[in-house]
Amino acid sequence: MSLLVTGSIGIDTIKTPFGISEDCLGGSAVYFSMAAGFFCPVRFVGAVGADCPFDLAEVFTGREIDLTGLEIRAQSKTFRWTGLYHDDMDNRTTEHMELNILAEAPPKVPDAFKDSRFLFLANTAPALQLELLEQVEKPTFIAADTMNCWIHGHLDDLETLLKRIHCLIINEDEARLLASEHNLIRAGQVILDMGPDLVIIKKGESGSITCSKDGDKFILPAYPADDVRDPTGAGDSFAGGFMGYLTESDRIDFDTVKTAIAYGTVVASFTLEDFSVNGLSNTNRNNIDSRLTELRKLVTF
Amino acid sequence: MSLLVTGSIGIDTIKTPFGISEDCLGGSAVYFSMAAGFFCPVRFVGAVGADCPFDLAEVFTGREIDLTGLEIRAQSKTFRWTGLYHDDMDNRTTEHMELNILAEAPPKVPDAFKDSRFLFLANTAPALQLELLEQVEKPTFIAADTMNCWIHGHLDDLETLLKRIHCLIINEDEARLLASEHNLIRAGQVILDMGPDLVIIKKGESGSITCSKDGDKFILPAYPADDVRDPTGAGDSFAGGFMGYLTESDRIDFDTVKTAIAYGTVVASFTLEDFSVNGLSNTNRNNIDSRLTELRKLVTF
Repeated sequence: MSLLVTGSIGIDTIKTPFGISEDCLGGSAVYFSMAAGFFCPVRFVGAVGADCPFDLAEVFTGREIDLTGLEIRAQSKTFRWTGLYHDDMDNRTTEHMELNILAEAPPKVPDAFKDSRFLFLANTAPALQLELLEQVEKPTFIAADTMNCWIHGHLDDLETLLKRIHCLIINEDEARLLASEHNLIRAGQVILDMGPDLVIIKKGESGSITCSKDGDKFILPAYPADDVRDPTGAGDSFAGGFMGYLTESDRIDFDTVKTAIAYGTVVASFTLEDFSVNGLSNTNRNNIDSRLTELRKLVTF
Repeated sequence: MSLLVTGSIGIDTIKTPFGISEDCLGGSAVYFSMAAGFFCPVRFVGAVGADCPFDLAEVFTGREIDLTGLEIRAQSKTFRWTGLYHDDMDNRTTEHMELNILAEAPPKVPDAFKDSRFLFLANTAPALQLELLEQVEKPTFIAADTMNCWIHGHLDDLETLLKRIHCLIINEDEARLLASEHNLIRAGQVILDMGPDLVIIKKGESGSITCSKDGDKFILPAYPADDVRDPTGAGDSFAGGFMGYLTESDRIDFDTVKTAIAYGTVVASFTLEDFSVNGLSNTNRNNIDSRLTELRKLVTF
């Protein structure tokens, strides 16, 4: 099965109580691909400027990540983000952001990728997400992420997008904002009424709540991390583990969705144990499977 | 098996976005007993003044709650509390509080109750909790609740208490405060090092995290409530369901503890669906068992 991701590649500077990681590799498509690569081949679509110091082929060594869709634009600059995590690691402040290449036209989906069956549209302007998904011919399962600024400023586009996708992956504050509803169970229902078959509401260290149009629900705590060093990319890693497992299974029934969410949860737990993509670089499918077994035991009564 | 509870009886006024309930029945021992009464007989120890308008024997009809330990003090006034819940129902403000009888000597444990095996010390000054537990001869399993003001102001007493009890049931902010540690997994470990064999950290709508001295862990989401009308007493109802099931089972191994926590979670979900104890009055063990089955399905993957 074929999984396509479109999203950002970033040069991140991350400040936490545990230290600073300057100009390290980040971006939604990067975290997503590293995470999904434990499960299936990934087709990568993203763009960087000539200033990008990272060799993604090298970073992705050992994973089947097809970089045909990576555009390197000589006249452009790569997306940059500086984030500061506060003492409790729950909240972060964006200290500095340069959209750079993300403010330009999005990269094209290569012809060879147009038959992709599973598609993840990482967070960006919903109009661009629509433009990207229209380049894929017959996707079976489209998931997307979004964020506050699009809910506030581009709601029409977002509503159009929601009618075209199968699954929205969103954090709890965004879900409340989008649904104008504080209670997350009711917020999930409101979002389902906007179009998608499935909504996954991420609650950080409290896990996730998933609701389906068929009335199914799944509630899973996060894997209990006692050593959180850098939460950057945990959400995109969750999405990568989730979509990677669905693609590997080539199924989208709710039982498979539940296991996929558990895999996403576990993969994200490796991301936040180290800076940048190091947590994902330094683990493997065996470790992920062990942690999945552990998570199942932690919630079983 | 015998379960003893010591705690408050209150005249509550509760203000929520859904309405106001004036001078309704409240108090930790009341919610606890109503909840535990689904599982086992309960021995009740508490005190009210002559102004108390409630007939507890009538309120508890249909449950085996022994009121031998209920003191009615002619010269005293009953504890009163007025709480305001904000729009999101997650936060509340105490608008008014009269300790009244709670500032007097605690009620005595009747001789007939002194052989109780399971004991719950609802939130009060840790010195009083110690005084109460010393009146019980050979308890097998003692659980206690506490709150911020005792952690701030009576830490010595609380530390003495923690060495005498088997289980602390505490909410997440209090756990962080007591442990001086933001990460809840690490906070749980710090609290275990203070004495108890088991710590249950309650996270409101995000459920609970339980850690044992033997290294066992259990993480359970809350039952997904889409209609929260009054969260007052949910924590004491949780404790009641938990202790009630342990007492009914007469076991304290970790598998039984996990099921007991799930029962506590489910019983609490009935409390918050209506004002005062109405949610508990209007349900039964069959409904509780059905919801337990549903909760198990919600977390199984």
